[in-house]
Amino acid sequence: MFNKVLIANRGEIALRVLRACKELGIATVAVHSTADESAMHVRLADESVCIGPPQSRDSYLNIHQIVAACEITGADAVHPGYGFLSENARFAEILEAHNITFIGPTSEHISMMGDKIEAKRTAARLGIPVVPGSEGGVTDDDEAKRIAADIGYPVIIKATAGGGGRGMKVAQSEDELVVALQTARSEAGAAFGNDAVYIEKFLSKPRHIEVQVVGDGAGAGIHLGERDCSLQRRHQKVWEEANSPALNDKQRKEIGEICANAIAKMGYRGAGTIEFLYEDGEFFFIEMNTRLQVEHPVTEAITGIDLVHEQLRVASGAGLSVRQSEIKFEGHAIECRINAEDPETFMPSPGTITHYHTPGGLGVRVDSGVYAGYRIPPYYDSLIGKLIVHGRNRVECMMRLRRALDEFVVDGIKSTLPLFQDLVQNLDIANGDYDIHWLEKYLAAKHAD
Amino acid sequence: MFNKVLIANRGEIALRVLRACKELGIATVAVHSTADESAMHVRLADESVCIGPPQSRDSYLNIHQIVAACEITGADAVHPGYGFLSENARFAEILEAHNITFIGPTSEHISMMGDKIEAKRTAARLGIPVVPGSEGGVTDDDEAKRIAADIGYPVIIKATAGGGGRGMKVAQSEDELVVALQTARSEAGAAFGNDAVYIEKFLSKPRHIEVQVVGDGAGAGIHLGERDCSLQRRHQKVWEEANSPALNDKQRKEIGEICANAIAKMGYRGAGTIEFLYEDGEFFFIEMNTRLQVEHPVTEAITGIDLVHEQLRVASGAGLSVRQSEIKFEGHAIECRINAEDPETFMPSPGTITHYHTPGGLGVRVDSGVYAGYRIPPYYDSLIGKLIVHGRNRVECMMRLRRALDEFVVDGIKSTLPLFQDLVQNLDIANGDYDIHWLEKYLAAKHAD
Repeated sequence: MFNKVLIANRGEIALRVLRACKELGIATVAVHSTADESAMHVRLADESVCIGPPQSRDSYLNIHQIVAACEITGADAVHPGYGFLSENARFAEILEAHNITFIGPTSEHISMMGDKIEAKRTAARLGIPVVPGSEGGVTDDDEAKRIAADIGYPVIIKATAGGGGRGMKVAQSEDELVVALQTARSEAGAAFGNDAVYIEKFLSKPRHIEVQVVGDGAGAGIHLGERDCSLQRRHQKVWEEANSPALNDKQRKEIGEICANAIAKMGYRGAGTIEFLYEDGEFFFIEMNTRLQVEHPVTEAITGIDLVHEQLRVASGAGLSVRQSEIKFEGHAIECRINAEDPETFMPSPGTITHYHTPGGLGVRVDSGVYAGYRIPPYYDSLIGKLIVHGRNRVECMMRLRRALDEFVVDGIKSTLPLFQDLVQNLDIANGDYDIHWLEKYLAAKHAD
Repeated sequence: MFNKVLIANRGEIALRVLRACKELGIATVAVHSTADESAMHVRLADESVCIGPPQSRDSYLNIHQIVAACEITGADAVHPGYGFLSENARFAEILEAHNITFIGPTSEHISMMGDKIEAKRTAARLGIPVVPGSEGGVTDDDEAKRIAADIGYPVIIKATAGGGGRGMKVAQSEDELVVALQTARSEAGAAFGNDAVYIEKFLSKPRHIEVQVVGDGAGAGIHLGERDCSLQRRHQKVWEEANSPALNDKQRKEIGEICANAIAKMGYRGAGTIEFLYEDGEFFFIEMNTRLQVEHPVTEAITGIDLVHEQLRVASGAGLSVRQSEIKFEGHAIECRINAEDPETFMPSPGTITHYHTPGGLGVRVDSGVYAGYRIPPYYDSLIGKLIVHGRNRVECMMRLRRALDEFVVDGIKSTLPLFQDLVQNLDIANGDYDIHWLEKYLAAKHAD
């Protein structure tokens, strides 16, 4: 195992990683910008190094400074957390060149999954279901009809050169397809100077479901079940749960095994998340994140497995702590991301927290780096903390979440706590009946009132 | 289910009960002495009633005031917590007479288990193993020899009228027995004016192991495994764990089933704990506590079952939420009772907490009613809070506990945190190798240094 790990991050995730290191008897080095001198992860680390001014590009994204901090402190490994340099293949390469372990996958795997087209191709090759569609541009109407018939309606026509919704048309039937192709081509031509279009299966109300995997880099891979992260606002996850209310045990096991087998075949090392859109019993690969996710604690709650321990283990060559057959899934967990934002407008609300009281008791976990008197700096994300609640089943989990939200006090700044207090009482949420569009629609309807 | 529950207690347990009520949608009434006006349970309850001056006898033990508070607020049930009125049969009777449900067993069962002789007799009748010994006083030496041979050496001779160690002698063999009987009789005669003595099996280094049970009052009873509470100072439990490091799964299951069957046969309603001394594979009944225990969270950690939910359920007639076969035991949990005491002298250290930071993260729970700025009143017990840590196994649990203790900050008063920081690094504790005398010996040795 490592002797000393440098944590190249800030906020709750830096504290999260620090805790795992301490539990494994590993010394810790915190790095921080000048804005984070009094942050909790700095206070609790064995050593700390200031790596630059507040702006991320000058500190938390400053590879040169972070490598220098490793050399000064003698750290033998770096945990990147999430965000910042966590999916930066060059950072991983540079560390390896300096004989410092990057706690994550190889730079090759990071690059492969960072390229969306190569990622989809790799996923398909490894047996992961991808969105069916034409391989490239479609010019002939009869070919388009044949492809659409194969995929099944509705289909979506997208501009090969496109983006931003232009040249994008949905067709519910063959009749609509011919018209849609014409319209899409002429819109694409006008917008992008290129009228090539391609066809994909159209998902009208998908859920976002992702599978947590960990590989040992030597051919072993496990999955730790799925998370449902459909509740999003502007592509930012807001509320995550494990298991997904939409899946049954058979589906859960099947998609989990597909993902575990895929990373085993890849020789993938580290924790990762394979993200899907899910509709009508089918999964469609979106991307793979080659790092720890913000929402990993819901998986930890239902499995009892510390994912950062596993990351540290596989990065150091100690291997996974469990076999697939030993992983048990118990109960249900929900995470709410409490942000320093106006709960109506979602405008950031930086400032000083005057009172701070976190909920406690059975099944309640709060991951947060803030405290009373802490000043939320304006330079970084607006996450105050994550509230993770576990119950024996989804109903118990929701009851506990409602209670925990009532206990949570953040004074001095605005927070999104009121949003969650509304959501936890909503009937659709109670029924687990939501897709990736639900939250945006809900917020729009609320504002229309 | 109840509409409104009055919580006749204070501190962390009042908050604990309040949380369970909130989760089940039950309105809560806090009662408090004038010293506890700004206590957390008062702040978080739906309503609160001041029931008297600081001294417990005038407030938390004042039955008249508590019944009046129920009538003022319309509470339909009372949860007594632990301590105070929780094992007061008269209180239970008076509440029933006022048509208010006492959340606990019937007054008959409280009385039965409150009388040590009747409790032992009942336990034996229900198939619970008790300490073997002479039924009453032994006057004849030959009879004494026969009984001692039956029990097996060593045996202890105790004065029937006795106490305080006088008239108490241990015999390792038949030769020693004859001498010991003479000495014990003469000491007993001199001390108590009554030379009658009785014989019991002598346990030289027993562990304290207790079984958590819950009955529905209608013939169903479950057990939730055992807790090892051997680490005690002056008969006060300091560190508790589940499961016991001393038991194997077979022993665990056997003693659990004996206890579950016993309370089912009794028609016992509510949560209870059957306490044993354990030595060399054998259990010996000490007593049954007819209430929630301070250390109940370790059981909750390994079962995922909220014991206060179960208490509320069975008291309201809703029955148990689980059958025995559905209860799974996962991992290992340890609780440390953090007291406002000097960690060397154990003198109480009341005063104002200036800084307070509790540990968090996976597997860590803190049950506490204090906060920064809170003034610990001198009138009640010195418990600041309970740190409960859960891991997949005992080793992981201990690593996590060490980390959590390092994170725990209580400034402004003295606390017993340093004691636990020592214990978690002790080799005997790491090996689970301790009995009920271990902690006293450890502390004596430390002071002798």
